[in-house]
Amino acid sequence: MSNSIRVAIIGSTGYGGVELIRFLQQHPRAEVVSVISASSSGTPISEGFPHLTDIMVRNLDGVNPEEIAAKAELVFTATPSGVSGKLVPQLLEAGLKVIDLSGDFRLKDRAAYEEWYQHEAPSQELLDEAVYGLSEIYGPDAHDVRLISNPGCYPTATLLGLIPALKAGWIDHRSIIVDAKSGISGAGRKASLGNHFAEVNENFKAYKINRHQHIPEIEQELARIAGEPVTVSFTTHLVPMTRGIMTTMYAGMNGQYTNEDFIQLYREYYNGHPFVRVRGAGTWPATKEVSGSNYCDIGFAADERTGRITVVSVIDNIVKGAAGQAIQNMNLMQGWEENLGLGLTPVYP
Amino acid sequence: MSNSIRVAIIGSTGYGGVELIRFLQQHPRAEVVSVISASSSGTPISEGFPHLTDIMVRNLDGVNPEEIAAKAELVFTATPSGVSGKLVPQLLEAGLKVIDLSGDFRLKDRAAYEEWYQHEAPSQELLDEAVYGLSEIYGPDAHDVRLISNPGCYPTATLLGLIPALKAGWIDHRSIIVDAKSGISGAGRKASLGNHFAEVNENFKAYKINRHQHIPEIEQELARIAGEPVTVSFTTHLVPMTRGIMTTMYAGMNGQYTNEDFIQLYREYYNGHPFVRVRGAGTWPATKEVSGSNYCDIGFAADERTGRITVVSVIDNIVKGAAGQAIQNMNLMQGWEENLGLGLTPVYP
Amino acid sequence: MSNSIRVAIIGSTGYGGVELIRFLQQHPRAEVVSVISASSSGTPISEGFPHLTDIMVRNLDGVNPEEIAAKAELVFTATPSGVSGKLVPQLLEAGLKVIDLSGDFRLKDRAAYEEWYQHEAPSQELLDEAVYGLSEIYGPDAHDVRLISNPGCYPTATLLGLIPALKAGWIDHRSIIVDAKSGISGAGRKASLGNHFAEVNENFKAYKINRHQHIPEIEQELARIAGEPVTVSFTTHLVPMTRGIMTTMYAGMNGQYTNEDFIQLYREYYNGHPFVRVRGAGTWPATKEVSGSNYCDIGFAADERTGRITVVSVIDNIVKGAAGQAIQNMNLMQGWEENLGLGLTPVYP
Amino acid sequence: MSNSIRVAIIGSTGYGGVELIRFLQQHPRAEVVSVISASSSGTPISEGFPHLTDIMVRNLDGVNPEEIAAKAELVFTATPSGVSGKLVPQLLEAGLKVIDLSGDFRLKDRAAYEEWYQHEAPSQELLDEAVYGLSEIYGPDAHDVRLISNPGCYPTATLLGLIPALKAGWIDHRSIIVDAKSGISGAGRKASLGNHFAEVNENFKAYKINRHQHIPEIEQELARIAGEPVTVSFTTHLVPMTRGIMTTMYAGMNGQYTNEDFIQLYREYYNGHPFVRVRGAGTWPATKEVSGSNYCDIGFAADERTGRITVVSVIDNIVKGAAGQAIQNMNLMQGWEENLGLGLTPVYP
Repeated sequence: MSNSIRVAIIGSTGYGGVELIRFLQQHPRAEVVSVISASSSGTPISEGFPHLTDIMVRNLDGVNPEEIAAKAELVFTATPSGVSGKLVPQLLEAGLKVIDLSGDFRLKDRAAYEEWYQHEAPSQELLDEAVYGLSEIYGPDAHDVRLISNPGCYPTATLLGLIPALKAGWIDHRSIIVDAKSGISGAGRKASLGNHFAEVNENFKAYKINRHQHIPEIEQELARIAGEPVTVSFTTHLVPMTRGIMTTMYAGMNGQYTNEDFIQLYREYYNGHPFVRVRGAGTWPATKEVSGSNYCDIGFAADERTGRITVVSVIDNIVKGAAGQAIQNMNLMQGWEENLGLGLTPVYP
Repeated sequence: MSNSIRVAIIGSTGYGGVELIRFLQQHPRAEVVSVISASSSGTPISEGFPHLTDIMVRNLDGVNPEEIAAKAELVFTATPSGVSGKLVPQLLEAGLKVIDLSGDFRLKDRAAYEEWYQHEAPSQELLDEAVYGLSEIYGPDAHDVRLISNPGCYPTATLLGLIPALKAGWIDHRSIIVDAKSGISGAGRKASLGNHFAEVNENFKAYKINRHQHIPEIEQELARIAGEPVTVSFTTHLVPMTRGIMTTMYAGMNGQYTNEDFIQLYREYYNGHPFVRVRGAGTWPATKEVSGSNYCDIGFAADERTGRITVVSVIDNIVKGAAGQAIQNMNLMQGWEENLGLGLTPVYP
Repeated sequence: MSNSIRVAIIGSTGYGGVELIRFLQQHPRAEVVSVISASSSGTPISEGFPHLTDIMVRNLDGVNPEEIAAKAELVFTATPSGVSGKLVPQLLEAGLKVIDLSGDFRLKDRAAYEEWYQHEAPSQELLDEAVYGLSEIYGPDAHDVRLISNPGCYPTATLLGLIPALKAGWIDHRSIIVDAKSGISGAGRKASLGNHFAEVNENFKAYKINRHQHIPEIEQELARIAGEPVTVSFTTHLVPMTRGIMTTMYAGMNGQYTNEDFIQLYREYYNGHPFVRVRGAGTWPATKEVSGSNYCDIGFAADERTGRITVVSVIDNIVKGAAGQAIQNMNLMQGWEENLGLGLTPVYP
Repeated sequence: MSNSIRVAIIGSTGYGGVELIRFLQQHPRAEVVSVISASSSGTPISEGFPHLTDIMVRNLDGVNPEEIAAKAELVFTATPSGVSGKLVPQLLEAGLKVIDLSGDFRLKDRAAYEEWYQHEAPSQELLDEAVYGLSEIYGPDAHDVRLISNPGCYPTATLLGLIPALKAGWIDHRSIIVDAKSGISGAGRKASLGNHFAEVNENFKAYKINRHQHIPEIEQELARIAGEPVTVSFTTHLVPMTRGIMTTMYAGMNGQYTNEDFIQLYREYYNGHPFVRVRGAGTWPATKEVSGSNYCDIGFAADERTGRITVVSVIDNIVKGAAGQAIQNMNLMQGWEENLGLGLTPVYP
């Protein structure tokens, strides 16, 4: 366990990359030694992100694994799906530890990856090696590994909300429905008609119903808990806001459980994990209550009439759903407290 | 069938009331002869609503059934639940036709009303008399009646999205889950911490899970179609936008139906009803696509993997969910075309 | 004076074009016979604008002046600056009347156009022929002409707010400062980082200070009133909203005038023009109060302490600032009432 | 100079109070020992602010100067105007240092206070004692005093943007016009029709033109620099966003200065003050670029044509305009670095 680490960020000009910078600036043991962008190398990072004026006075570097390895010990790859799959092997080869924020190393099944992502999958060897970095669940697996695959934003909110109940056998995995809602930043910084302000504002829309590439990731991880294949209904919606994800989840209960039962079960399950906050009976978290922070807040509505439990789970998609959990994973890799440098209070209002 | 009608609006200073004014100004056969407010009578309506400057130059009147009846033939009661229940009998007594936008005359079962609304219910006689004004379904029942109970906003989007499939026997009514999302205007114009801009903006929240007073209305109407009691899971969420409702609905299918099957079923069912637009395969409506208009747009995602259908239904909560459908019901009462004076194109963007 | 007119719209897939469609659908004397798009011809207009489903069932046509002239009598060119300059002469040649919504025919001085727009200007002959269509000011000039140049959104709000005072000699034209704010739709539908929701939402920014291409248009028109050159300070800002412009204008007063004086002056000046609403003392219009409508609302704050008048003017930039005023100009060309088909009440909230 | 300080916050349930908590949680030398609310004492602070769940596990205390003094050394009074004026003398009497966030101690002239605030002013003695805490300008005056009057949000953005130019004699103080825009949080957490989401969203409005109570504060401070009375035109606008202020300021220049001249002047003036960032030529700051942080960013547009300078100044109204500057003042009182505990990167996007 070393006391500090030098890190680089590839993909620094996306929203995940720039959020890594915001948190790493506060991190007591990590030093950002290189911010990297394939498209904008050579220009000051504050040119595209004026909020970093005087805070990070640094030019963007190009993508060169050897040069990165000469400066840094660990690299965050906030690169698009398809790019990471090709780049990560070179980074590992150069001796770097890697925390990958793309979806390229999350699915263990190459065929599933290729079906959902429509790219060639990375090698089976690397897929097997990559630790799925859902920190509260697989934290111990992250210690001292070379490669962590950071979970997707929707899977993070969904899995943290379902796993304790599924593991306890309280819900029927054949009945799971996930109704997910996300702010726009989840779609990245690249301009498109779909994220044009005038199209998004005062609008609420569904997209990729039962077709989102996070579905196989969710099903893979639920199956791992259930011990058999799991299939879910999954709808994604765009909310006219920048940050935040809520997943509202429905499942049939295998017994007569109350809200208090669920609260107790989850509080015990997440005991010692400061970023999961289980709310009291009769209240549910709102996305703004975790905005800008690494928290995942969870609430319940058990319904006698229908025999179903409704679980509400919220995160900030750029933090717990991306940059924050990546740093949490870095902490776990290094053997540090999982909340080191991540203890920022949500920004409210 | 008369050629024109003189109408009054009680509750003109709420969002439903002021939207009635916007549409009635365009209506070729209706004349607004009195705008009424219990709290602000005597002041010009444009004082609280400056957008009506020069458009409606009229003072607000007080609530006096005899005086209303002296001027008008029909009255819209956009009054709070509990108020309508007491006021409507007096209006009927005075000889007026009434279209009530509160929830007071929607539930046929007095006990259910009192459980969910926590007020005393109106008389059973009036509850029996009131026609539930879901225009596309019960249009013929509306002709020439005295009292129409205008449906709630959530029930309108939900029922129009479920009834054709339920009636055809394609879905299992024990499996229905409704995940509903609404803009803030649905909560009315009264200021509260819950509708404070800084609390709502950049926020997405769930509320009243399985406790919303629109649940018994939805279940009553689904039971009427199913021929036996129906119980649904129902979650309501607040979206940081002013107008619009989406209900995303899930149900197990009683067979292997495709999106095309559903599209054909619904197009046939709603044939001749211009305000329901059934979307093509693979696309789902967004709330902005009906904003400011009386449309209800519906799309489907049938899923072989899970055997479930997902139905997406959107309306403008103030129009098809309140004022617009009320005018549609007025048209039907009078024997006019249901879309008379309602043909405004959605405002986009 | 004919009773009806067949019109075509070039640029139907932009926000100005689609708003022309919304209003023309209601217009009692205009029939849209062709919607035209250089980029999307051959596809249904409802594909890119699903809100038009079942409302306008029509494929987009290509840009062919002869074909347009075979169907239509008048064409709205909602085309980009630079495109209109080349296209309009061909349309006139084909015998069409033209109302141009670009900036290409607004500046009478070719050199000024080329300096501010960085394109070659149209011919001096056409610039001289084009009537500047600020309807309330130059309405009579529009009657029976071939070519109207529709004013810019910022100039419309600015000029309607300043001209009566300037004409009366009440303000010093050397002291005019215009602080303008606009919703995002003014920048058009083309996706860019600058209109990405996550960059615009919860953000307020200034742009093109003293460099906006609407400045020479404003100065040209103010000079026409003042009888000598006028130079203004002009700042444009982006507001995180879709529709609406407010210009807050400051000028030194040439005497001791009160709010009441200004109100009376403006009400007399705009007497008979229903779309300018002069507000009462101590109140100022908000953009939402004209949203979706063709109104321009104006309010005043005369300040004894500083000797300055502050004028607040609001419009919906897509309506009075583009499509609505274009239709108003069509009405004036045809000799019809200026508000024909434009009487929609603002959408509130 | 002590190494740490125990602080209390009165008015913890307002937006200023809760933002003090967010920053003080990160502050290495301050410990929050009491959070106080007149209206909600006895309840957990996380009840009204669930985002503080598990972060601040503490009940709200009542307002009792002796009890506060028994626990704390310094108190922040984030109380309404009128309340502070009465409470602060008692707190000082009890031996506490006070940083007051209301406007009660900002105006040195009791008559001016009573005219603009319509309350009785505090004693002249306390008004004379209170240091006006515009940190970058009067930092040295704050050292070791008992009472600091924290500047208003509009005055902070305005004064930091004007003082260097005024002090240098580059602008004519008779020509100053301030066009200010603010997010809604500036109006506090109390619900009103004016901050109802449906009234604010998609709306931009002007209010209190030349009547805002921050005007005498701005004029007092500008006069202190100019050495003679200063009168400004001042317009305030509400932007549909939660956080952020921009002031766009216009003044006639006393010579031919370029943007580069202004940039150099301001960079020298603010040298050593990390929270003022002077932007490069041709760019202006946007409010989101300082959101959640204590920065004030400034940009310029010098205009040869009109002889005027336009200065754009942005802050986060709750941070640099309230809680952040209050902590900066605490640091200065204590003799610490002014940015201690305040170095959070703006939250973007």
